[in-house]
Amino acid sequence: MKFNKHLQNISNYEAGKPIELVVREFGVKNDDVLKLASNENPLGCSKKVQRAIKDCAKNASLYPDDSMFELKEKLAKKYEVKTQNIIIGSGSDQTIEFAMHAKANENSAILVAGTTFAMYEIYASHVGAKVYKTNSKNHNLAEFEELYNKHKEEISIIFLCIPNNPLGECLDAKDVYDFISKIDEDTLVVIDGAYQEFASFKDSNKHINVKKLINDFKNTMYMGTFSKAYGLGGMRVGYAVSSQSIIKELSKLRVPFNITTLSLKAAIVALDDDKFIQKTLKNNFSQMKKFEKFALKHGIDYIKSYTNFITYIFKDKNATEISQNLLKKGIILRDLKNYGMNAIRITIGKPKDNIRVFKELEKLI
Amino acid sequence: MKFNKHLQNISNYEAGKPIELVVREFGVKNDDVLKLASNENPLGCSKKVQRAIKDCAKNASLYPDDSMFELKEKLAKKYEVKTQNIIIGSGSDQTIEFAMHAKANENSAILVAGTTFAMYEIYASHVGAKVYKTNSKNHNLAEFEELYNKHKEEISIIFLCIPNNPLGECLDAKDVYDFISKIDEDTLVVIDGAYQEFASFKDSNKHINVKKLINDFKNTMYMGTFSKAYGLGGMRVGYAVSSQSIIKELSKLRVPFNITTLSLKAAIVALDDDKFIQKTLKNNFSQMKKFEKFALKHGIDYIKSYTNFITYIFKDKNATEISQNLLKKGIILRDLKNYGMNAIRITIGKPKDNIRVFKELEKLI
Repeated sequence: MKFNKHLQNISNYEAGKPIELVVREFGVKNDDVLKLASNENPLGCSKKVQRAIKDCAKNASLYPDDSMFELKEKLAKKYEVKTQNIIIGSGSDQTIEFAMHAKANENSAILVAGTTFAMYEIYASHVGAKVYKTNSKNHNLAEFEELYNKHKEEISIIFLCIPNNPLGECLDAKDVYDFISKIDEDTLVVIDGAYQEFASFKDSNKHINVKKLINDFKNTMYMGTFSKAYGLGGMRVGYAVSSQSIIKELSKLRVPFNITTLSLKAAIVALDDDKFIQKTLKNNFSQMKKFEKFALKHGIDYIKSYTNFITYIFKDKNATEISQNLLKKGIILRDLKNYGMNAIRITIGKPKDNIRVFKELEKLI
Repeated sequence: MKFNKHLQNISNYEAGKPIELVVREFGVKNDDVLKLASNENPLGCSKKVQRAIKDCAKNASLYPDDSMFELKEKLAKKYEVKTQNIIIGSGSDQTIEFAMHAKANENSAILVAGTTFAMYEIYASHVGAKVYKTNSKNHNLAEFEELYNKHKEEISIIFLCIPNNPLGECLDAKDVYDFISKIDEDTLVVIDGAYQEFASFKDSNKHINVKKLINDFKNTMYMGTFSKAYGLGGMRVGYAVSSQSIIKELSKLRVPFNITTLSLKAAIVALDDDKFIQKTLKNNFSQMKKFEKFALKHGIDYIKSYTNFITYIFKDKNATEISQNLLKKGIILRDLKNYGMNAIRITIGKPKDNIRVFKELEKLI
């Protein structure tokens, strides 16, 4: 059977056994598996959210309110925008998909940092769009500008991941605004704020003012998620904030019931528990210091991180070997070999989990 | 800002307030609202599933096992196929999307029944594909064949909804197999089995043997869902079963974590509670008889239904007025005006709910 041509260029990702299973095959007990590989919230999610999910379990048979009225109202209040400025996605990932299918195609291109969130490139492959990357792995706006000016006719979307996953670095907000002011109005600039709560907490210069962003620049879209600071990675809820006219177009591509009834409820309740978010952010950065100290002590390079993970870059040691050896001890981290780096990305965990990581790492370096 | 050309042809669906809210504005109390509009399971979902969701609430922060190993294993066993024959979607809707993006494009077309599930046409609009519909509202395979032969070069996917939503009629399985044998191997034939559990229970001649289907015809894809008989409409889980080579291509378009952690758990547990399914099916068809009896008594035409809903077609009375008047009483049914029919579609409810519908309907006809 013949398929659309651009599918030929999409590599087939064959998911194997879950990595937890592999670890268990090394004889590690279920309860001893420590996963610090996916930047999930180590504190879980708000107790209020857990209660809401339990109360809502009986409604699993009922489709969600597809207007998502209550969630949009709360987000609109949070960002001081209108509900018409908001679209809800199944994870913020899905809002990338909306943008890609609305603006990009086989004759266009997207522009991203050298090393950044993999989904931009994956969704580009789904529509057959070309991907331009800066030579710098991290976000270098001068390089972005140069590449943009060179391929202006082709580039329909620019993605800025602020702070950047999987590296952790973060542009200053004012530099982001300056950059956008140089971009043509017909090019969509997407600001991926999946980890913005962390960056804003650490340094107010990193804070993207979403209201100002979409008011000053009609060609921008801000993406937020409930998967990280809000601790709802498993519930798949994210959103985009943009001008009403852009949201109107993206909404054409959102199909009914794109999030679950329980996810909708969980996100609404999560927005009300600011204490949980504060606890998450405080734990994250106090523990981050321990990771920095550990790195300094052992001569490991690391990228200063504005997120809930830290990237260790190794010189003499082989990062893949290290992560394989940690696997045997039941510790799952993210090897960044696929990004062309001799590095591992570690989600900042709970104090006792981090101590375990340090203890095992110490034996390997 | 310019968007991809085919977006111009997509109408903007502006979701208003949830219909439950509208009903409440008529002074109906929250608990008195009766929704028989979306073919949700009136018995809710399995108690075992509800318990599993509650137990799993603490895992809302964790991404699901993206291999979906356990769910695929169970489905593979159910259908006597391999896990490589299965892809999981966020509702079976998403497997329509996979098929559409893999096979259809601006230069191709799809072929569907005159009145059928709206999502086929919606997803076709997302890729700019043309839609051919039979003149007959219900599935008329002679017309399908004629249209197919006329536009063979264009048609990349044929959708058969068996039984058909929103009408309720159902083709015999052997007629479906006969039809597929006349279709070119490069045309994908999708059998949407969202309501197959109901049809198979009522009449074994309607039962699609999925293993036989995909073995005999390499160009077919069967779609199943947890939203109807399994009572998990709010959890968004569906699947497609097809040849390994087709599943391999569709998998290129599935992004990681396309269902929630709780949805994955719910679906796995739901497959183990056959008693709940049997109870659902028995309630449905014993209550269906009451709807048929009511229609006969009052001279209302109805379509013999193999699903969990029944479509009443009115002659002298105005169906839209009837459904509007029912709304004022707190009863939400589906007016089929948008399908060009003077008809309402009613989800078969619990005995006491159905009695309420009959009582209020009697006053209006």
